[in-house]
Amino acid sequence: MCLCCIDCGKNTRVCLSQLPYIHPNATDMSHSPNQISFGKVYLVGAGPGDPGLLTLKAKGLLEHADVVIHDALVSSPILAMVSERAQVIDAGKRRGRHSLLQEDITQLLIDQAKTHAAVVRLKGGDPFVFGRGGEEMMGLLEAGIDVEVVPGITAGIAAPAYAGIPVTHRDYSSSVTFVTGHESAGKYRPKVNWRAVAQGSETIVIYMGVHNLPHIVAELTAAGMAAETPVALVRWGTRPEQEELIGSLATIVQQVETQQFQAPAIAIIGRVVNLYEILAPASPMHSPHWAKLSA
Amino acid sequence: MCLCCIDCGKNTRVCLSQLPYIHPNATDMSHSPNQISFGKVYLVGAGPGDPGLLTLKAKGLLEHADVVIHDALVSSPILAMVSERAQVIDAGKRRGRHSLLQEDITQLLIDQAKTHAAVVRLKGGDPFVFGRGGEEMMGLLEAGIDVEVVPGITAGIAAPAYAGIPVTHRDYSSSVTFVTGHESAGKYRPKVNWRAVAQGSETIVIYMGVHNLPHIVAELTAAGMAAETPVALVRWGTRPEQEELIGSLATIVQQVETQQFQAPAIAIIGRVVNLYEILAPASPMHSPHWAKLSA
Repeated sequence: MCLCCIDCGKNTRVCLSQLPYIHPNATDMSHSPNQISFGKVYLVGAGPGDPGLLTLKAKGLLEHADVVIHDALVSSPILAMVSERAQVIDAGKRRGRHSLLQEDITQLLIDQAKTHAAVVRLKGGDPFVFGRGGEEMMGLLEAGIDVEVVPGITAGIAAPAYAGIPVTHRDYSSSVTFVTGHESAGKYRPKVNWRAVAQGSETIVIYMGVHNLPHIVAELTAAGMAAETPVALVRWGTRPEQEELIGSLATIVQQVETQQFQAPAIAIIGRVVNLYEILAPASPMHSPHWAKLSA
Repeated sequence: MCLCCIDCGKNTRVCLSQLPYIHPNATDMSHSPNQISFGKVYLVGAGPGDPGLLTLKAKGLLEHADVVIHDALVSSPILAMVSERAQVIDAGKRRGRHSLLQEDITQLLIDQAKTHAAVVRLKGGDPFVFGRGGEEMMGLLEAGIDVEVVPGITAGIAAPAYAGIPVTHRDYSSSVTFVTGHESAGKYRPKVNWRAVAQGSETIVIYMGVHNLPHIVAELTAAGMAAETPVALVRWGTRPEQEELIGSLATIVQQVETQQFQAPAIAIIGRVVNLYEILAPASPMHSPHWAKLSA
């Protein structure tokens, strides 16, 4: 059984032919057995965790998907938006506890699209910012599966924002570099040139950098970055359990150790971190909304 | 007259004490004349243009704001979501046609928050990515006005995505630098070190770079970036009128001139641009949704 759009005839429950994305005349109809067209995969960014930061398009897709295949970093209030009749598959991968290999996930998406109309691949943050969305999209296209990306708010911008740190500012930073701290795992073939990064950007935002922080700090320091350069770590950014750790290149590694500060966290390095003192009181974390969610 | 939340008593039409952000028991009540607390300003990212990329939180705020002060780059379908009873002020600033100075905008926000409960400052993209959100937030806090940021999808990620270009990819790019091409105007005090940027990142994304492109291309080339490095320009990214121009460092300046390619556009430089050939067919621009919007 599949919900089709009687206007455009696409075999999907989700018709994007007009806003708000779900065709008002959609109706329930069974596929005839000889209909062999495949479903469509939506590579959807779930944002960093705050359900209010989900996009309208993502919400519409979650409410009408047949299958949702999600990462470990997708927050539970967002998973709660998934339609009750959808099949939900946890393909969560966390450091050292890979539950599914990337090839297996791509194959799973292909298989699901062959048997379901609307398949949502739900990723924390944005699918194209260290999210492997490009790889999954290529695999799907090669298999003849229709696919579309739905960008999400990336943690590298929103987690600092929720800590009172704007990644750019006309007085302090005219550029920001997003870089993965995970490259030591050898998965990223272009290795990060930390020394050039240190010189090229006023703000450096490191994804998945906690584990590799001692190496990164050593490289940035060797590149001539001042020891007193401010550093912030934001763990579980935009979620009720958000935690911040503020220090400098000279101190942060020791602070992480002392405070047992764990992943997942975003690291922000640069003068904009000094704005934390001024702007953190205006963080959305202090709004009544959060007080209630955390209660 | 002002809509207050009878539960929490905050003098705002927008109560964030629970999802979906608007308190279900909100009721209409007049302020007593001796109530002198100020309203709150929400610095809201409107995203790059596609209304489907607006966040749930932003939509809730637009529907319940008393005043909306917006930039030129906010798209009309998003402005159409603003409550009919809200006052809408266009503070649009476009290159060479500044309608309001930055100081005037901050003062306007302060003034509006003194007379209205919920003031939305609506910016294209994300308020903290070349959006001057940090400056406005500091100005508001100094004036004693409550303020909160609502991140939005930045054009530097979504415009490439809608052109089939992921800004990172495990085979091609482990870092991406976002930089303003507008710095020649002398507003950004830390000048962009284009040579270091060329060496530090596999992907470079330039905001507002069309006007200054000949200078930027010359700097990147002088830094040793290969002439055949692929370059994409995406104009009005994620909107029905999106246009792309694909070339290389060697050709792009001439192409812009020949085709009279105009701002506003995002420039993407690096090997990920080669994925355009493979992934552009999967762009959301080709979904029925867009065919209809463009008709």
